[in-house]
Amino acid sequence: MNILSKGAAWMGGQIIPIADAKIGVTDWGVTHSDIGYDVVGVWKGAFFRLDDYVDRFLASIKTMHMTIGMERADIIEALHNMVAASGMQSSYVAMVASRGRNPIPGSRDPRDCENHFYAWCVPYVHIVKRDVADQGTTVWIAKTMRRIPDTSVNPRVKNYHWGDFTSGLFEAKEKGFETTLLLDHSGNITEGPGFNVFAVFGDTVVTADRGVLHGITRRTALEMAQARGLNIETRALPLEEFWQADEVFLTSSGGGIFPVTQVDEHHFSNGAPGPVARQLRLDYFEWLERDEYRTPITYN
Amino acid sequence: MNILSKGAAWMGGQIIPIADAKIGVTDWGVTHSDIGYDVVGVWKGAFFRLDDYVDRFLASIKTMHMTIGMERADIIEALHNMVAASGMQSSYVAMVASRGRNPIPGSRDPRDCENHFYAWCVPYVHIVKRDVADQGTTVWIAKTMRRIPDTSVNPRVKNYHWGDFTSGLFEAKEKGFETTLLLDHSGNITEGPGFNVFAVFGDTVVTADRGVLHGITRRTALEMAQARGLNIETRALPLEEFWQADEVFLTSSGGGIFPVTQVDEHHFSNGAPGPVARQLRLDYFEWLERDEYRTPITYN
Repeated sequence: MNILSKGAAWMGGQIIPIADAKIGVTDWGVTHSDIGYDVVGVWKGAFFRLDDYVDRFLASIKTMHMTIGMERADIIEALHNMVAASGMQSSYVAMVASRGRNPIPGSRDPRDCENHFYAWCVPYVHIVKRDVADQGTTVWIAKTMRRIPDTSVNPRVKNYHWGDFTSGLFEAKEKGFETTLLLDHSGNITEGPGFNVFAVFGDTVVTADRGVLHGITRRTALEMAQARGLNIETRALPLEEFWQADEVFLTSSGGGIFPVTQVDEHHFSNGAPGPVARQLRLDYFEWLERDEYRTPITYN
Repeated sequence: MNILSKGAAWMGGQIIPIADAKIGVTDWGVTHSDIGYDVVGVWKGAFFRLDDYVDRFLASIKTMHMTIGMERADIIEALHNMVAASGMQSSYVAMVASRGRNPIPGSRDPRDCENHFYAWCVPYVHIVKRDVADQGTTVWIAKTMRRIPDTSVNPRVKNYHWGDFTSGLFEAKEKGFETTLLLDHSGNITEGPGFNVFAVFGDTVVTADRGVLHGITRRTALEMAQARGLNIETRALPLEEFWQADEVFLTSSGGGIFPVTQVDEHHFSNGAPGPVARQLRLDYFEWLERDEYRTPITYN
């Protein structure tokens, strides 16, 4: 039994069981949520679109003015060796840059901190269980909170500022819904905890462009939609328009495409996954295995 | 030499050196910044206004739907024993409730998580160095980011969502300013990283009421101002009005009252601490020693 098979981490050059992977309580990653991260999937023994995820991660680190002392190749090597050691064929792999500890007592200067990198992996996550996802899932639009605006925190740097999502999740779970999505302060659809949101109108798919993470699975969904001959639009999606959609679906690196059958009291596509979402969900599992997107792992 | 004298932590009933105090990388406290915390000062061997800080902390936990398995008396005992073991006569003491790990793989339900409490203490922090503070400090109003609105994250639950502050701090430090303050999306003064902001107009002191933490030191400042016969107003403070202030000062549990002599290119009170801020700064160090606010520590 490989002790790493339930989860492994890479910290300071060591590969360790995930239960042992911890960061200090005074690390700004904790005390200021001063972290940029990314999550890439491993599917049947290979990373999916690894370069795209690492590109975004490196862009996040740069935007946050962090220096982690590792180049692109070092990061990829760390991720590879960690997953290989775990033996996991399918995995959810996080790469994380934290501002780190400030060694100067009382200093509030972020430039003084000792930035650092770590990574961890667990068995592949489906943010909605596969059987639920196949039937279509339910989403509650948060009523008490709006998405943190991009004029406060940059949503294109994948970050751990999830207070608004967590408020929405409590509302959703109390109401018996699977997950939540948030509006912006102008009443447009934004995103949910770990996913982007799409609406289908005839042969056009629409997703938000501003105030949301530009997810790699969002990009994959747009590319798959184009490949299927659909029109794509990335723009503001007002709630009133959203209600008129033929179908709704979610996209996440934790499981791909999730058809939505109900939002609040409104049923979409007659309460069953719609044809576009169903097709793209199948396409995603096929694209996951395309050689052009795969970086195979050499297991020990 | 007491190994705890540079910093100690209380975790799971154990008192340990702060360098050993860590939380797991998959704890929602890290991955969702799902933490409510508070910070109380210890000054010359006693907690200051301990009940007020613990009251706010307990209110935060309740608002966040967390259950930490400790009553008020347990929390106070943990804080007391930790500081006593450290031997520190003056200390900055954090009490923290984290959502914790979700033991169900892939679960996004916050109700599944194992909430937990921890605490840590370090030597007393002055968020602006004492000699700088005595001369008056400089503040940069963040230009790229506005304070996370209270319609996204509740600012009265003291939290670690500091991305907006950190953006502002980078701006401030690059410009050579000591710290930063943020406006809300309507152009009102809110708060900065770890402090509230006050403006003085004649014999009236004004500070924001909405979109900010209701700091205990903010409360102390309001009480000290009243005791000095000043009028107090807690209300929206538009930037245009702020520029007309006679004096500006900051309040923080990390050092009390901080006179401000410059905000952006604007000099206040002729570039020296104003009389109200100077008086309240002195008053604060006197109030810190008042028996009615002190909870003495019994050192081992």
